[in-house]
Amino acid sequence: MVGYQTYLDLIPELLVGKEVLSSQMMKEVERARQCLELAATGKKVALVSGGDPGIYAMAGLVFELARERKDTVQIEVIPGIAALNACAARLGAPLMHDFAAISLSDLLTPWPLIEKRLEAAASADFVIVLYNPKSKKRTAHIERAREIILAHRAPETPVGIVTAATRESETITLTTLDKMLEAEIGMQSCVIIGNSMTFAWEHYMVTPRGYAGKYTF
Amino acid sequence: MVGYQTYLDLIPELLVGKEVLSSQMMKEVERARQCLELAATGKKVALVSGGDPGIYAMAGLVFELARERKDTVQIEVIPGIAALNACAARLGAPLMHDFAAISLSDLLTPWPLIEKRLEAAASADFVIVLYNPKSKKRTAHIERAREIILAHRAPETPVGIVTAATRESETITLTTLDKMLEAEIGMQSCVIIGNSMTFAWEHYMVTPRGYAGKYTF
Repeated sequence: MVGYQTYLDLIPELLVGKEVLSSQMMKEVERARQCLELAATGKKVALVSGGDPGIYAMAGLVFELARERKDTVQIEVIPGIAALNACAARLGAPLMHDFAAISLSDLLTPWPLIEKRLEAAASADFVIVLYNPKSKKRTAHIERAREIILAHRAPETPVGIVTAATRESETITLTTLDKMLEAEIGMQSCVIIGNSMTFAWEHYMVTPRGYAGKYTF
Repeated sequence: MVGYQTYLDLIPELLVGKEVLSSQMMKEVERARQCLELAATGKKVALVSGGDPGIYAMAGLVFELARERKDTVQIEVIPGIAALNACAARLGAPLMHDFAAISLSDLLTPWPLIEKRLEAAASADFVIVLYNPKSKKRTAHIERAREIILAHRAPETPVGIVTAATRESETITLTTLDKMLEAEIGMQSCVIIGNSMTFAWEHYMVTPRGYAGKYTF
């Protein structure tokens, strides 16, 4: 069982009787490589991740490394609840219609491409899920993202911000495109911006399933 | 416990000692309304859905109806493994980078808007997840979708098709944008089209996490 200590701490019952290797944050490549090296010795190795390892997470890195190493070990990805699944559920039902997931981190992606995606998603009325909206060093990206989307969508468009979804410190904010920058947004936040049909009702954010009005109640 | 019989059959242990109401396929509005009516009498009601109720599924309908009825019942959405989570996992790691989910069903959405979204997602190099790619009556949409995407992406772009993910009848096909129409695609299929960086390796489909090449192994 290999994983970042914080995640391993969440599953004590699954670690009983197993060989456990914990590693520090930001050592992702080393962690993935370690798994492949252990698997190459014939061991059955589980790499424990938060969320869904298949969505902006560790699964890809394992395959990238395995290809480079010309590994022949069998790799299986077990899907999980990604931030977009969890945050949408906490907000109500914002992902009932076509949506785009965009990370605002330009660490591995050129910023002009991120802007192009924001523009494309905004202009085609996708619900937009923003990953990595803001860090201590990177505070202007979310402002620019809002500006791009606001050129295509009404200021009163509902926006949901969920931070540390399902954890003890979870916070949920329902706001609007106009006012979203007044809310607390951080490293652990996921921001969901409604499409032109999304509405706020009570403390929920809901995107209707249809545009055509054919669905009669 | 309220749900379509096929889903209720999957969770017999959760039904023990509970009042169970099963309903037929295509009676979604009635099912959601029934839940709200029962909840209004003070009962605690669970509406059982397949996948993630929050992604292209039942959650939105419940909120839409509750708003119309001016209901004050408390509603909680429990997230699950959506088709996009499950299909991505079965294919390898295609969703490591920005992606767009688009339904090709024009039952509740005008077709020109769907085309606009395909065009936007293709031009901005999103990985694209197609829901409802094909039905018996609707066979041309997937052809048109491929045509739009092919105008922006190489013919050898990896395409993964997963049908009936995680069920006994599951099939997984790894093909290319060029050849994807030769594969079996049906009502229960989900089609994932790679971005310009996605590669096929062994029987896996993988999107690298970065464009910038900054991530050194």
